[in-house]
Amino acid sequence: MKAERERENMDRDRFEKQLQFILEIDKEKNILRQTHLSGHGRRENDAEHAWHMAVMIWLLREYSNEAIDPAKAMMMALIHDVVEIDAGDTYAYDAKGLATQKEREEKAAQRLFGLLPEEQGRELRALFEEFEGYASPEARFVHTMDNLQPLLLNHSNGGADWREHNVCRSQVEGRHKKSAQGSKEISDFVMGLIDENVKKGNIRDE
Amino acid sequence: MKAERERENMDRDRFEKQLQFILEIDKEKNILRQTHLSGHGRRENDAEHAWHMAVMIWLLREYSNEAIDPAKAMMMALIHDVVEIDAGDTYAYDAKGLATQKEREEKAAQRLFGLLPEEQGRELRALFEEFEGYASPEARFVHTMDNLQPLLLNHSNGGADWREHNVCRSQVEGRHKKSAQGSKEISDFVMGLIDENVKKGNIRDE
Repeated sequence: MKAERERENMDRDRFEKQLQFILEIDKEKNILRQTHLSGHGRRENDAEHAWHMAVMIWLLREYSNEAIDPAKAMMMALIHDVVEIDAGDTYAYDAKGLATQKEREEKAAQRLFGLLPEEQGRELRALFEEFEGYASPEARFVHTMDNLQPLLLNHSNGGADWREHNVCRSQVEGRHKKSAQGSKEISDFVMGLIDENVKKGNIRDE
Repeated sequence: MKAERERENMDRDRFEKQLQFILEIDKEKNILRQTHLSGHGRRENDAEHAWHMAVMIWLLREYSNEAIDPAKAMMMALIHDVVEIDAGDTYAYDAKGLATQKEREEKAAQRLFGLLPEEQGRELRALFEEFEGYASPEARFVHTMDNLQPLLLNHSNGGADWREHNVCRSQVEGRHKKSAQGSKEISDFVMGLIDENVKKGNIRDE
């Protein structure tokens, strides 16, 4: 009876595809980043990072250089690391990993977004590529959040992640170079925080 | 120099309050739920659960009974469990915990949303209360997602969480009773899934 009612109302094939994608991305909770939670906790995973970024987008969007559509920016943030389910997390200061990152993530995007109904897969794929290419106000601001979020955690932990990886100023500044494209104000704040951590010896001043 | 520039552009007191809230909610990543990740993984935490729900809202909003504002619904989902940082997670089938839940969460909401600049704190508090009261199309649909998300994980794990807690049909159906307020179609699907798990013996048919 119930099954019959469902078929009348809902395209079950479409819904099943959506559920398959939703279940598949559960794996993102197992992709560990190099960042540790505040309070010197365990390593953070991609899903937690994306959750945190999406909240930040809502709360800090007033600092975006350009007006943004919050729903689009939040969804972009929520799925920006989904490809790491297949491609793994590439640490921001891992030169070797960064060289093959593009190709690995391309294959992953094809498989993962391909699970969805076609037009939704295309939509998410486009969002992901827009993000990768800094190709819209939303993409630029989401990148600013992507950089700010681990910096806040790391700063709250006395820069432990930077010290562990022996990271130097030019690396951190290089990573944050494009943050000003999303928010001049937040980028200024970030550069101040980097200065502070160089002075404290948490970031190597080469 | 940088500090001076910042003061010109940005209300630093306001920004610091926003950052304080953002850092404080990092603790949500340590609030464990009863649900386990797919593939019989570890227990899920509140931040991961909220991330998953927000993605689901975007992908499944076509099934909402009423039109919803996706940004509002996503933000509501992202922060709906923030109060558990102070109040802890209350399992859906824990009658004793449910009795004091309201009071514990009220105190938590006051402290946590009170960290933000006043009008933003009020905004998030209102979103949280709207959710709690099923008081808008967004609130009703977010509840449907809040119920569907653990059900999908649990179903994918052969109903292990239901079996572990010896849960019976009326409990699960009771929890999902209001799902139809958000989405008739998804509620029908959920009831079918419950039937299936009763038949398999994963949910007790008392």
